[in-house]
Amino acid sequence: MEISSRRMQREIRRATARAAGARMVQPIHALPVYQLVDEERVALIHDRSMQILEQAGIAFYDAESLQILRANGARVEGEIAYFDRDLVAEFLKLAPRQFVLQARNPANNVVIGGDYMTFLPVYGPPFVRDRARGRREATLADLQNFIKLTMMTPYLHHQGGVIVEPMDLPFHTRHMDIVYAHIKYGDRGFMGASTEAYTAADSLAMSRIVFGERMDGPDPCIFCTINVSSPRRLDEKMLGAIKEFARARQAVMVTPFILSGAMGPAAIAGTVAQLNAEALAGIVFTQMVNPGTPCIYGSFQAVTDLQSGAPVFGAPESQLSLYLSAQMARHYGLPFRSAGMYASSKIPDAQAAYESMMAMLPGVMAKVNLVLHAAGWLENGLVAGYEKFVLDCEILGMLHAYLKGVDWSEEGWAMESILHEVPPGGHHLGTAHTMRNFRTAFYRAELFDYRAAEAWEMAGALDSEARAAQKVQKLLYEYEAPPLDPAIDEELQAFMARRKRELG
Amino acid sequence: MEISSRRMQREIRRATARAAGARMVQPIHALPVYQLVDEERVALIHDRSMQILEQAGIAFYDAESLQILRANGARVEGEIAYFDRDLVAEFLKLAPRQFVLQARNPANNVVIGGDYMTFLPVYGPPFVRDRARGRREATLADLQNFIKLTMMTPYLHHQGGVIVEPMDLPFHTRHMDIVYAHIKYGDRGFMGASTEAYTAADSLAMSRIVFGERMDGPDPCIFCTINVSSPRRLDEKMLGAIKEFARARQAVMVTPFILSGAMGPAAIAGTVAQLNAEALAGIVFTQMVNPGTPCIYGSFQAVTDLQSGAPVFGAPESQLSLYLSAQMARHYGLPFRSAGMYASSKIPDAQAAYESMMAMLPGVMAKVNLVLHAAGWLENGLVAGYEKFVLDCEILGMLHAYLKGVDWSEEGWAMESILHEVPPGGHHLGTAHTMRNFRTAFYRAELFDYRAAEAWEMAGALDSEARAAQKVQKLLYEYEAPPLDPAIDEELQAFMARRKRELG
Repeated sequence: MEISSRRMQREIRRATARAAGARMVQPIHALPVYQLVDEERVALIHDRSMQILEQAGIAFYDAESLQILRANGARVEGEIAYFDRDLVAEFLKLAPRQFVLQARNPANNVVIGGDYMTFLPVYGPPFVRDRARGRREATLADLQNFIKLTMMTPYLHHQGGVIVEPMDLPFHTRHMDIVYAHIKYGDRGFMGASTEAYTAADSLAMSRIVFGERMDGPDPCIFCTINVSSPRRLDEKMLGAIKEFARARQAVMVTPFILSGAMGPAAIAGTVAQLNAEALAGIVFTQMVNPGTPCIYGSFQAVTDLQSGAPVFGAPESQLSLYLSAQMARHYGLPFRSAGMYASSKIPDAQAAYESMMAMLPGVMAKVNLVLHAAGWLENGLVAGYEKFVLDCEILGMLHAYLKGVDWSEEGWAMESILHEVPPGGHHLGTAHTMRNFRTAFYRAELFDYRAAEAWEMAGALDSEARAAQKVQKLLYEYEAPPLDPAIDEELQAFMARRKRELG
Repeated sequence: MEISSRRMQREIRRATARAAGARMVQPIHALPVYQLVDEERVALIHDRSMQILEQAGIAFYDAESLQILRANGARVEGEIAYFDRDLVAEFLKLAPRQFVLQARNPANNVVIGGDYMTFLPVYGPPFVRDRARGRREATLADLQNFIKLTMMTPYLHHQGGVIVEPMDLPFHTRHMDIVYAHIKYGDRGFMGASTEAYTAADSLAMSRIVFGERMDGPDPCIFCTINVSSPRRLDEKMLGAIKEFARARQAVMVTPFILSGAMGPAAIAGTVAQLNAEALAGIVFTQMVNPGTPCIYGSFQAVTDLQSGAPVFGAPESQLSLYLSAQMARHYGLPFRSAGMYASSKIPDAQAAYESMMAMLPGVMAKVNLVLHAAGWLENGLVAGYEKFVLDCEILGMLHAYLKGVDWSEEGWAMESILHEVPPGGHHLGTAHTMRNFRTAFYRAELFDYRAAEAWEMAGALDSEARAAQKVQKLLYEYEAPPLDPAIDEELQAFMARRKRELG
């Protein structure tokens, strides 16, 4: 709030009062967490990962980064850095276990780590698909639409970043248009670019225009995602982005992306050991750049169809690797990112939904702290689906209801109704207990159809994709932009104009 | 095998050799089981259930049953039986923790209870749906088709019973046609009728024709499902079926069916307490009829949309009740039945798939021993979907792969490849480890499409329902009936002819 003008503060209050977009409440996971293995097995994975870091090492394709590594105690030979297990432990201790990730509207701040879960939209697709127009290249208008859809759901807690790649904009400057769209059309948190050092720097500069001194506190205002280029490699561009974010003490999410059988072995234990080594190497490096930088431990694993070479999302083996990675992240006391509504299907059909649940539900069981790709993912991440997006949000709503757990108060037992009010063969529809609870007892899906077949047919026999298409239109129509201080808007536009001139 | 003729034994061997249908192997759940609550909370649910049994009681609408209850120590007032908690404990101890459920082909025997999971088709729909012909009344031909589809998948371990209601046959005799279809077209296990005492008796008589003395051993050859008519009511017909099955020492599955908000309170804790009381009452009664009768503790819970009154399957709250019921069944040491590929959707679209996973995956996490409705369920159970059936089977295959867990042998780590063979940025596609494992490392889905969008579009851009329709045709075309001793076939037909004359 520090830099906002009085007028701005009034605007924010008014916006919150009229609930621009939907009001979101981050779910707290207070249920028991699923543990696939015991501590002994966790220690074994740790040991194998340490073997990888000590004996095989990680390639850092950046001279300054290699210097930083050497200066902080890593053994460097050529472009490979080797990490002793004590060194790893020493630097991991510096990363916070949990932190607040700030949003433009402070009401939308989220907690990353601990018992908190945070859901974000899909990230990165160069294509979009909708029912009416099919599959096509994504544009800035699509990105704006997806930001609006994000603001309209209570079940995404952060706007993410490259929800789609605006392919209609020049590659070398579009990172600013993306950040600007997030600021203009939303007031939840947003991510910065991490494609190169300069795109990261531009994101941080724009973030500073919006957040001002809020950037200087202990709680980051922006974060970026760094995909380790598995196996065992971080290139100059990623390292540049890490250095920019760490030096600005904004959050860094390090995520090895492994298709088992391609970037890692065709085996789960080995994949998790490698993934763990790579994630830790990135986090340790980040701590070496600036101790205490908030980090998120990421795990992004799918399998390879070893007869065709195609990636397979929503595979059963990926559940197992997710559970193991979750235990490793908790073992190190780091916020954990994984899961998502992954699908290999090209369209939001039954395949896509089965796959998405196979990938997402284990994420809830394992208490993933940050779920990127929680809505909209299709076709191995190449496509953001409009209908898929709102369908996924419906499931996210259900997961919010699930995470509330069981009401163990006397109201949750309704013993009076059971013992004294409803006779054998009677019904609870009209009991005092039901009358008190009927609005809130159970999650009410908007998009799912519960009518009798005849009523559903009379209404056009629409499948869930068709109903989702209607909902997309309704949400985009009803959307209202959150207020943005005109002075800030102007400053952002001036910054972008200058940088675009500089970048040519 | 006791009563099979030599010729029959040869036939069975030959059938197994050429694998009539698919070869099925029941999965063993060796992974940690998800526990939602601690033992203290389990004890609390138990206590509340005992309050229901002691203070509110269960209605038994059958004079002989009330006599049995009274003779065995229950307090009977009018048609209500009250069970003291010590009495409940005494009779629960008599039920086996685990038992073998025999199949016509002994290779297809299954274990019910313990770490074993058993998947069965949907049960009860009066309608079918397929892509070409839409929704229509089910016929005997449909039942035969679904039995054939069951035989063609490795992932259903038992044929179930009324996969669909053959609405083209007279109501009062069709139970025999159903049992006969199972025997004629399959050699996995099958269920008997439980609609009334005489339909149960006919099922048992037909079962004896097939199994002969195998019926007299400790392991049942057939089982039936008894839905308690919640709240707190067992009628004369259900009690008649229980008595028939228990006296023949065949297995009885007792399942309260509760839509929370209608047949139980609009609250999860209370629903589970009521459900537990009802299931235990049915099992205790069964043990009173014939101590030691194998029983299965069932939990079938969904919620009511309290604004429309419609049932809602695949709701998040049902996950919670499933976890609790699973813990109760394990607390009593009884085999547990729950979960299923439930959906409220009318068609096999994304809604149906999301819902099915929301209901099924928790069943795996909670180690449900018997999953009725594991394939084909649509429209709140009113419809058996052909395409849904084979799509669900694809997921069941994935769940088999998941249940194998992680390979912790050195082959599962592939450390040699990681440490020494694949350089930074290299790939594992051609490693010796991958070459050894590429066929078996990961589950290969047949129905799910993993091709690039272009290839998928060239092939007709079929959604998963369309591909499933093709698979249904292929499976029905390739199906071969397992051998059936002509003498047994003749005896079954003679029995049915006589009974149909008697029943008019």
